[in-house]
Amino acid sequence: MYKERWPSQLLKNTVEELSSLPGVGARSALRFALHLLKQPEENVERFSNSIIRLKRDTNYCKVCNMISDTEVCQICTDSRRDHSCICVVESIRDVLSIENTMQYNGLYHVLGGIISPMDGIGPSDLSISRLKERVESEGVEEVFMALSTTMEGETTAYYLYKILKNSNVRISTIARGIGFGDELEYTDEVTLGRSIQNRQPFDPMNK
Amino acid sequence: MYKERWPSQLLKNTVEELSSLPGVGARSALRFALHLLKQPEENVERFSNSIIRLKRDTNYCKVCNMISDTEVCQICTDSRRDHSCICVVESIRDVLSIENTMQYNGLYHVLGGIISPMDGIGPSDLSISRLKERVESEGVEEVFMALSTTMEGETTAYYLYKILKNSNVRISTIARGIGFGDELEYTDEVTLGRSIQNRQPFDPMNK
Repeated sequence: MYKERWPSQLLKNTVEELSSLPGVGARSALRFALHLLKQPEENVERFSNSIIRLKRDTNYCKVCNMISDTEVCQICTDSRRDHSCICVVESIRDVLSIENTMQYNGLYHVLGGIISPMDGIGPSDLSISRLKERVESEGVEEVFMALSTTMEGETTAYYLYKILKNSNVRISTIARGIGFGDELEYTDEVTLGRSIQNRQPFDPMNK
Repeated sequence: MYKERWPSQLLKNTVEELSSLPGVGARSALRFALHLLKQPEENVERFSNSIIRLKRDTNYCKVCNMISDTEVCQICTDSRRDHSCICVVESIRDVLSIENTMQYNGLYHVLGGIISPMDGIGPSDLSISRLKERVESEGVEEVFMALSTTMEGETTAYYLYKILKNSNVRISTIARGIGFGDELEYTDEVTLGRSIQNRQPFDPMNK
């Protein structure tokens, strides 16, 4: 929509750019553009500069591949964190999700994807040899795989297990089970079966 | 979410800025930021610059208040358009919607809002005296009100009617009726009643 006639070329340009964001159509893009237009110029500059600085002034941590404002990220350089445990995740977003739980205090390793033959992504496209180096050189005791419970996630986990099993580290994976608020009746049988096998002592203080 | 720990301050800044867009939460903002991060730098610059230029280099048309790249907008200066008809709308967005129908070839007047005592918006907050000047000075024959069918829209239309009724112009309003694809059964009775009063000759070529 709004394709044919544009009273302002600059508005058209902005709407086209905003439409390139994932899940944003022409209608939302127009709403964003008109919203920005109503803000004071200094706010729009701050908005716009934050985006360009994100691109120009960040890099990927040369240890763990996490996005970072410095060559090595704040997590990898934090001496209060447990450097003996590396959590392997698919993406930057997963690091943020796990950080947000406040339940993990080790380091990370961002693979930058997941093994997916359908999408032409094989082990060599991921940061796996770098992970093996880290595991073997830095006194790591545990590799904790926090990957999706999809076919691709399971394949990747199995591949990593094969690569790392001779490295003298514990290999763990996030617990599979029934999510909070899920009903047994609607849980698929693989998940339900796994959560029966992995049943845990009941702790009334921390269910 | 994602509030507590941020491995990158620059990512945090961008997510906060993107969250200021209407209807965008922290999760979508993060998705936008990570998407932008993956693009080539020149694309991100073009994205960012389009926003800053929209703010810096556009203004409101001094005739009709539409957003414009020039002092007077392309619609007001277009000699192929019918300068005897002014369509009164609430916002810039309405102009774009009407332009997109390709069914109107006159000029516009953007009020910049709608009379809404609940929100503290009265007639003096809108571009009404400027509309009256335009109507009286430029040989205008018709004022066509394309306002929402809400209480506020109807109030504004009635107010404009009172202001303009002695100006020797035809005052028209967009047709109220049953939208395409609507079912009679679910149409409210005011709309249905109005669309019975305003019934039109049946034209099999242009239903």
